[in-house]
Amino acid sequence: MKIGILGTGMVGNTIGSKLVQLNYQVKMGSRSADNPKAIEWAKSAGEDAFQGTFAEAAAFGEIIFNCTKGEFSLAVLHEAGAGNMAGKILVDVANPLDFSKGMPPTLLPELTNTTSLGEEIQKAFPQVKVVKTLNTVNCKLMVNARLLDAEHDLFICGNDDAAKVSIKHILREDFKWASIIDLGDITNSRATEMILPLWVRLYGKLQTPNFNLKVVT
Amino acid sequence: MKIGILGTGMVGNTIGSKLVQLNYQVKMGSRSADNPKAIEWAKSAGEDAFQGTFAEAAAFGEIIFNCTKGEFSLAVLHEAGAGNMAGKILVDVANPLDFSKGMPPTLLPELTNTTSLGEEIQKAFPQVKVVKTLNTVNCKLMVNARLLDAEHDLFICGNDDAAKVSIKHILREDFKWASIIDLGDITNSRATEMILPLWVRLYGKLQTPNFNLKVVT
Repeated sequence: MKIGILGTGMVGNTIGSKLVQLNYQVKMGSRSADNPKAIEWAKSAGEDAFQGTFAEAAAFGEIIFNCTKGEFSLAVLHEAGAGNMAGKILVDVANPLDFSKGMPPTLLPELTNTTSLGEEIQKAFPQVKVVKTLNTVNCKLMVNARLLDAEHDLFICGNDDAAKVSIKHILREDFKWASIIDLGDITNSRATEMILPLWVRLYGKLQTPNFNLKVVT
Repeated sequence: MKIGILGTGMVGNTIGSKLVQLNYQVKMGSRSADNPKAIEWAKSAGEDAFQGTFAEAAAFGEIIFNCTKGEFSLAVLHEAGAGNMAGKILVDVANPLDFSKGMPPTLLPELTNTTSLGEEIQKAFPQVKVVKTLNTVNCKLMVNARLLDAEHDLFICGNDDAAKVSIKHILREDFKWASIIDLGDITNSRATEMILPLWVRLYGKLQTPNFNLKVVT
């Protein structure tokens, strides 16, 4: 299967490399077709690793991962092009972090509480099946839930049930997520994005990004 | 020890009754001195259960619990009177839930993300030692962490270390909290209050309010 990755940062790198290892064909997209980080990644990640513009990556992928910084995600997706994503699944792993007010970051006011990044992406691209997931954990954990010994939970939400079934399959089989909590439609992404203020503080306190939450009943 | 409880709802009732059972003297405060719910509570909860106005409850308590609805908390605390609370610990268990935009509730925009109810209370009453805790769990769990078999975590924050030591003692010894995560100063209350959008959704999904989060490393 062909995957488009939007973003050349650590998250895009980690997810892209893992998917290549798992025999997916992956094209990493960036603003320009000659992004040195994307070229370097495509060289080193394996035979099935490619790179190009955001639009080329979106057109290439049967499934697309949004691994851009939340503050730029909507602009990047417009650059990727609605037509290149129409009818496809977009896995949104981004968070609308706002670093402009100091550390630890807050959330971008226009993308939180009464809405969320996931919701605004779905509104802007109604033909795309947005699935929000993986945004509450570090990228190493995203692609290998077994990094932690104890049980822990991943949240997922989105409007399209079949799209969620497809992504849950990848999460379970490829990324080894044993416990996935489906919160329902895309409006639930505001709840998972709003965990981030706690996440960044726990990161500071625990001194490792390799942690997660377990819902205990 | 004498405790003042602000609020006559389920949270105030549950905490107040538990503290009376544990041999604390408890005065429940409400807007008027003849609130039927407070009178009923004081009659039924035990010999050491009293009731009065917000100001009387605040004056009575060596430690004060804010168990009012978040949207009214600041007004109630002004009614309770800065002088009646000066130098004392105020345990803030409230959340700034906004039910005006439909269900599930959002958070009051002026009390979230770049600030929080806990922070605004501390700013408005600088002489009070505000300790934010218990706000991420249902009231039955607040006073008896052992309701759940598995390990789970409680968050606490506040500017005054000695105040947090005192409250942690009550949480551990009286409410049986085995795992308490101290996030630091009161600015961290925004992180715990922002868990609420997830909490209300998990409540809807799990069909029980008796659940909590465990931080897994």
